[in-house]
Amino acid sequence: MLPDSLALFTDLYELTMAASYFHHRMFAPATFSLFVRKLPADRGFLVAAGLEKVVSFLEGFSFSSDDLAFLHQTGRFQADFLDYLATLRFTGDLFALPEGRVFFATEPLIEITAPIIEAQLVETFVLNAMHVQTVIASKAARCVHAAQGRKLVDFALRRAHGVDAGLKVARASYLAGFTGTSNVLAGKLYGVPFYGTMAHSFIQSFDDEEAAFTAYAETFPEDTALLIDTYDTLAGAQRAARVGQLLQQQGHQLRGVRLDSGDLLTLSQQTRQILDAAGLHDTRVYASGGLNEHEVSRLVGAGAPIDIFGVGTDMGVSSDAPSLDMAYKLVEYAGGPRLKLSSKKVSLLGKKQIFRCINDDGQYEYDLIGFREEHCDNLTNAKVPQTQISALLEKVMENGRLLSPLPSLEESRCTFFGDFAQLPERYKALPAPPSYPVRLTPLLAWFQEETVARLRARYAPPQ
Amino acid sequence: MLPDSLALFTDLYELTMAASYFHHRMFAPATFSLFVRKLPADRGFLVAAGLEKVVSFLEGFSFSSDDLAFLHQTGRFQADFLDYLATLRFTGDLFALPEGRVFFATEPLIEITAPIIEAQLVETFVLNAMHVQTVIASKAARCVHAAQGRKLVDFALRRAHGVDAGLKVARASYLAGFTGTSNVLAGKLYGVPFYGTMAHSFIQSFDDEEAAFTAYAETFPEDTALLIDTYDTLAGAQRAARVGQLLQQQGHQLRGVRLDSGDLLTLSQQTRQILDAAGLHDTRVYASGGLNEHEVSRLVGAGAPIDIFGVGTDMGVSSDAPSLDMAYKLVEYAGGPRLKLSSKKVSLLGKKQIFRCINDDGQYEYDLIGFREEHCDNLTNAKVPQTQISALLEKVMENGRLLSPLPSLEESRCTFFGDFAQLPERYKALPAPPSYPVRLTPLLAWFQEETVARLRARYAPPQ
Repeated sequence: MLPDSLALFTDLYELTMAASYFHHRMFAPATFSLFVRKLPADRGFLVAAGLEKVVSFLEGFSFSSDDLAFLHQTGRFQADFLDYLATLRFTGDLFALPEGRVFFATEPLIEITAPIIEAQLVETFVLNAMHVQTVIASKAARCVHAAQGRKLVDFALRRAHGVDAGLKVARASYLAGFTGTSNVLAGKLYGVPFYGTMAHSFIQSFDDEEAAFTAYAETFPEDTALLIDTYDTLAGAQRAARVGQLLQQQGHQLRGVRLDSGDLLTLSQQTRQILDAAGLHDTRVYASGGLNEHEVSRLVGAGAPIDIFGVGTDMGVSSDAPSLDMAYKLVEYAGGPRLKLSSKKVSLLGKKQIFRCINDDGQYEYDLIGFREEHCDNLTNAKVPQTQISALLEKVMENGRLLSPLPSLEESRCTFFGDFAQLPERYKALPAPPSYPVRLTPLLAWFQEETVARLRARYAPPQ
Repeated sequence: MLPDSLALFTDLYELTMAASYFHHRMFAPATFSLFVRKLPADRGFLVAAGLEKVVSFLEGFSFSSDDLAFLHQTGRFQADFLDYLATLRFTGDLFALPEGRVFFATEPLIEITAPIIEAQLVETFVLNAMHVQTVIASKAARCVHAAQGRKLVDFALRRAHGVDAGLKVARASYLAGFTGTSNVLAGKLYGVPFYGTMAHSFIQSFDDEEAAFTAYAETFPEDTALLIDTYDTLAGAQRAARVGQLLQQQGHQLRGVRLDSGDLLTLSQQTRQILDAAGLHDTRVYASGGLNEHEVSRLVGAGAPIDIFGVGTDMGVSSDAPSLDMAYKLVEYAGGPRLKLSSKKVSLLGKKQIFRCINDDGQYEYDLIGFREEHCDNLTNAKVPQTQISALLEKVMENGRLLSPLPSLEESRCTFFGDFAQLPERYKALPAPPSYPVRLTPLLAWFQEETVARLRARYAPPQ
């Protein structure tokens, strides 16, 4: 469905800039930093995701002969530049925040250092790959927080933005604590557990609702979850209970029933009563239909006897915040700091590190952004002697090679759970969370200020 | 990057339902109807897109041996069912609204009639493919309306939701009237015109802004557009004007300058003055940076001298309405009407057609949804004798085969322009457009009411 080579999955200007760098023999190393400028409204934290895809892209980065033939026939590029592209590979270093880690605005997620043409040409793909999974993991984590330990399953496949998004939503939501997905291909490709019940069409295709329930149970006696709202939910629950009792008599157990419309609080209570009255105490109640973190929180808070939430579209497109103000900016070239001064868009210069400070209770207290070479030891706040500091960005690739295998998806999921447990509850508030404190180290703050002042003095118009 | 076979790009329940249909030897034809239940806030119309992808999926629908091996090892499916899947192809009929047509809530976009297993198994992909492009084309059309004839270029690639969305956003926005995209791969795959300027990193990588401008112009003397807001926009405009004059002396022409931050109205006016004062009347002003239909409308309304708008994230994720309430519902099985009664989710039964009524001025007046077999002749409203009526859904596939080649992307773009010109202006209002009138034919209304009443009498609990 998609071409093998994704080198042309890029904004044209990456290629024209590369051509001009080449024309002017600019091959010095550049460092680009990827970060989120500010958090969307009502977001107190973000969850890093997408690194695996970035690494596989960088490892395989090359232009196919077909790509080069296409670029040639556009008439925009000189033959010597296209010859150069033919053998170009990614030979740089990659520092990154591991997948599953919690992070905040202005913090570098990815830093790439490579000859400027390489570092420039990978921009569009790296942003695209990090953006979608970080958007979704961050939204999914809010649902996980809202569910307070109840299970969540990704139901977003049909309304995710395309094929790749459908897969990435399943992966990123699992990474951020979902129990699984409805998406079979994500099960095959990523090992995400996958689940299913039935659709209304199954019920409708039989002349009678109970006949449909019975037919399904005959096919899957060990694994039947019945959708009960096609005609009338409580009557459907009664019919499901009868089928459940029949299964019980045959030595099986009705796995669950699903509610997909109406007042889910009242209906789940009434359905639970019907199931319990029929002795089906282990049959679970699933709920779906337009759910998001706010609705899940309301239902859990009200004590709705719902065991599993199917969360679809609102999570899968991150409906309230479908994008992040994520940028990939040049911060160093040929050993010198580089900045732009565009209004409200100043980025942090140099090769950086995030230092996370943990308090006595093991909870995250604040973060410092500093130069990569700064040492944790020198950053300790004397007023909080027991504060622990750890550096978050890890060196992932060196000279274009992966240094060690990336964590598995399960390991990254554990990273998320560990990080999320250390994030104080107040930052997880669904509406209006406070801002987690992120400051610059004195050294970075000084350099930043000095460079901005120097550039402003040079470029600002005379007053 | 993605597997060749997308048969497993599906919700698990499609496969389990299919297994149960197979178990019970249910092979009768089913008709499923794909439609949008209601329009998002502030949307007065939608634009159909995604059909090409649906057709190629249906034409190639099959399970690979690898897919079947995976399904086997899940332990969920019987061998006879998997054997059946091994030779399964799509053998049904497809009726569809051509790409680029304007449509409204409750109208069928796609109707598939096929043996129920086939029609059921394709649900997830068909929804996913139609949803993303329809969402984006509908959003892009709003931008096109706002631009009032000025040009728009898709800049969304980096923040579209994944690889497939990046490509589909370029395609769907071009279909709905954009001039082109920054996306090179979309240029290669779909023939969408692609454009580019330069990024801040290019400017930053030189020690001096004017040196960067000059260097780029040396590489692309015939095709240079300079980004002027890296340090100070007006000083950047002065420098760009000097480079433009230099190019002019060499017999070339500076194509454009781009503004990417700040007060775009004032800056575009001042920049235009600087360019004109330097005799660069043909150098165009581009603007980008957080634009959407509202901002474009404001700038155009204020007379900002901006020639081309680069519209990115807000269009590419359809930020105010990133999803549509799009559904694919069983409406007929084995020759009989099928409905569900779930609250607020009743769908329209049977094989249907959209009849569009056009007034004397050639403008769209109202739509009727009726049975496919109804004839336009019988629907004419006696009170508006000159009203013309046309049937919108076309038969695209029969017995699994495409009847004639689909329109090219350029042809579909013309379809959009034609349709959009006939849609009265009031439905294009950016905030709070009125509802376009969509009614049922008397025959469909009667059948629908009768069937709902019959099912309610059967399934509603005794009062």
